[in-house]
Amino acid sequence: MSLIVQKFGGSSVADAESIKRVAKRIVATRQAGHEVVVVVSAMGDTTDELLELANQLVPAPAGRELDMLLTAGERISMALLAMAIKGLGVDARSYTGSQAGIITDPQHGAARITEVTPGRVREALDQGAVAIVAGFQGFNRGTGDITTLGRGGSDTTAVALAAALGAEVCEIYTDVDGVYSADPRVVPSARKIDVITSEEMLELASAGAKVLYIRAVEYARRHGVTLHVRSSFNNNDGTLVVNPKEGETVEEPIITGVATDLSEAKITVVGVPDIPGKAAQIFTIVAGTNANIDMIVQNVSTASTGLADISFTLPKSDAQAVITALTASQADVGFDSLQHDDQIGKLAVVGAGMRTNAGVSAKLFTALFEAGINIEMISTSEIRISVVTRADTVNEAMRVVHSAFGLDVDEVAVVHAGTGR
Amino acid sequence: MSLIVQKFGGSSVADAESIKRVAKRIVATRQAGHEVVVVVSAMGDTTDELLELANQLVPAPAGRELDMLLTAGERISMALLAMAIKGLGVDARSYTGSQAGIITDPQHGAARITEVTPGRVREALDQGAVAIVAGFQGFNRGTGDITTLGRGGSDTTAVALAAALGAEVCEIYTDVDGVYSADPRVVPSARKIDVITSEEMLELASAGAKVLYIRAVEYARRHGVTLHVRSSFNNNDGTLVVNPKEGETVEEPIITGVATDLSEAKITVVGVPDIPGKAAQIFTIVAGTNANIDMIVQNVSTASTGLADISFTLPKSDAQAVITALTASQADVGFDSLQHDDQIGKLAVVGAGMRTNAGVSAKLFTALFEAGINIEMISTSEIRISVVTRADTVNEAMRVVHSAFGLDVDEVAVVHAGTGR
Repeated sequence: MSLIVQKFGGSSVADAESIKRVAKRIVATRQAGHEVVVVVSAMGDTTDELLELANQLVPAPAGRELDMLLTAGERISMALLAMAIKGLGVDARSYTGSQAGIITDPQHGAARITEVTPGRVREALDQGAVAIVAGFQGFNRGTGDITTLGRGGSDTTAVALAAALGAEVCEIYTDVDGVYSADPRVVPSARKIDVITSEEMLELASAGAKVLYIRAVEYARRHGVTLHVRSSFNNNDGTLVVNPKEGETVEEPIITGVATDLSEAKITVVGVPDIPGKAAQIFTIVAGTNANIDMIVQNVSTASTGLADISFTLPKSDAQAVITALTASQADVGFDSLQHDDQIGKLAVVGAGMRTNAGVSAKLFTALFEAGINIEMISTSEIRISVVTRADTVNEAMRVVHSAFGLDVDEVAVVHAGTGR
Repeated sequence: MSLIVQKFGGSSVADAESIKRVAKRIVATRQAGHEVVVVVSAMGDTTDELLELANQLVPAPAGRELDMLLTAGERISMALLAMAIKGLGVDARSYTGSQAGIITDPQHGAARITEVTPGRVREALDQGAVAIVAGFQGFNRGTGDITTLGRGGSDTTAVALAAALGAEVCEIYTDVDGVYSADPRVVPSARKIDVITSEEMLELASAGAKVLYIRAVEYARRHGVTLHVRSSFNNNDGTLVVNPKEGETVEEPIITGVATDLSEAKITVVGVPDIPGKAAQIFTIVAGTNANIDMIVQNVSTASTGLADISFTLPKSDAQAVITALTASQADVGFDSLQHDDQIGKLAVVGAGMRTNAGVSAKLFTALFEAGINIEMISTSEIRISVVTRADTVNEAMRVVHSAFGLDVDEVAVVHAGTGR
């Protein structure tokens, strides 16, 4: 009897009808002979509604109390789901993060899991019950307080339980059929990826693919958990995210997928004295704002001026704080000016096969050139190439690149039938 | 520095504005130099809405899961209240029933408090913070599960914490100014009672007065907790519910108040053989349905028939189960028939001074007779006399009895100004 962890997001349990549908799926898995642990998010917009209530009271609610408030959301969905499953004649018990042994550090709103002690979950399984666990929440032993894991927290809860319980697979249910070679809304010829390595998935997620959260994929990779991203609206196989062992042969396409991201802005520090330590000084200031820096490019300085330009990208929402911090240090650092550009788009091609294939960059740049798309920044990792373009050209860029690397499916209509998007 | 427990019901925290108002009152109490523990119910209709969701899924939700679901309600209100208090510059921390040490037996939906270990609450107070505790909920050690205390549970939580922490007073905030000598909606000349003994309060609550729950009053009496029932809409003194020690002199009016109850039905078992053990047999059957029997009257049997009639009152909602159980045993018990009457009203006069005053019954019966109101059943305790009349005469009965015992206020207008009803 294998153990399967199933994670359902808020849209899968948005109302009584949805909860009943999810309950049926869980019961089917149980009746197929599997042990089942379910991780569930808060219903639909519950979390946003609770946040709205808090904001009506105070501009910046205390973290401890905000976590106490928000964790009510999963408490509701998990209890309802357990009732629905029991209503179908299968025993089920719901557990809070704390009861399920999700132990975290004390950082409210963005806690990290430090330990998983799922004794009660294991016990419920041993007694033949389905265990329903609240996603997104944990417990800190030092303070005795409830914590939340931040964005994508429920995915992380599911992966952490799968690792601790030695699950065969961690199924992440979503409203799409799996991970696609590009966003199907932009690239109609995008195809569902059947198997992808967690390394590639990480790069795609970092590059803007929304279907899985980076943290959950990282956790899965570190603990060797196999993920199965699939639709909650049908029984089709989705995308397996696997962790091939060292030396294990996996068929690696040169390029697995293309992702784009319109959520970033670019800041350019103009006229930085080209002397050692200036970049370190700038990024120490930036780090002080807790901004999430993505790509960094430094221009070659011209001998005549001895000045360089340093550009970096970061989430649009972090830009103002960084500009404020850098402006305050302008005299100290000695740069000329700052430029802020929030009309950029990022495109990344990801593929583990890239490692052993020269010419990927050349093909990418050629495709963009032929489409008349200008490249403003370039950054590469072992299995990824990212470029920054104008925001309004990034969708066209995704289509031409997807096509140039031979990712287009032959029969578009067949693939997109019944994806439930 | 004295410790005060303040309990706010769902209507006092129904929306953001109400929560802010309650927060201001708590902060004022704290700033007056008191240690403050607050017990709070779920916001407005939250509990009913959660129940409705559960009923959309299954007709009879599992108790464990229902408790898990419903306890989300106080989690929301307590976290919001703590945020609002912190927003006013006073430290506050919210605690679930479990965190506050409300230990109960394992009976879901109607758990009884077996122990209170408020270590974390005490610690918060020692650090100068206001402690906000979720009402209505507890924790069972044996199962490790969350429980709820049933109707009036938040009042009971407040009293239990007041007892465990040695509070000076447990303030129960409500939408009326205190306990009245009769329901002011029916008897305009009713007056607010300034001081009442917990014994009298118990009798009034049992007789239908809605302002306090019997369980909470019982707990307060057993542990010597002083209650202060007062309005959350003004700063007027309300009603003190006190526990005079043995031999302590308290000014005891002969009659403290009058209460009525229209929620009961009467069942008459007609033609019961007048032989020993028949009453025991009948009430063993009735007890098997868990019905809450209130008054019991047995007619004298006539020598000619050797048959007696036994009547009893019980909540209307319990009547059908009792009729079913008795009908199934009709041959065994040997009675003739059952009569079911749900058009009865109960009136009770309560007063500790009754103990030392003859003539109370006579004055009561005379007043009712003069008003042309027929008495169908009578039951007495040491400090209470209850009568059953027709449902449609019970309000008139309350008015004439209230007047007959001299309870009417002289200037009605003054008393009722600003009661916030």
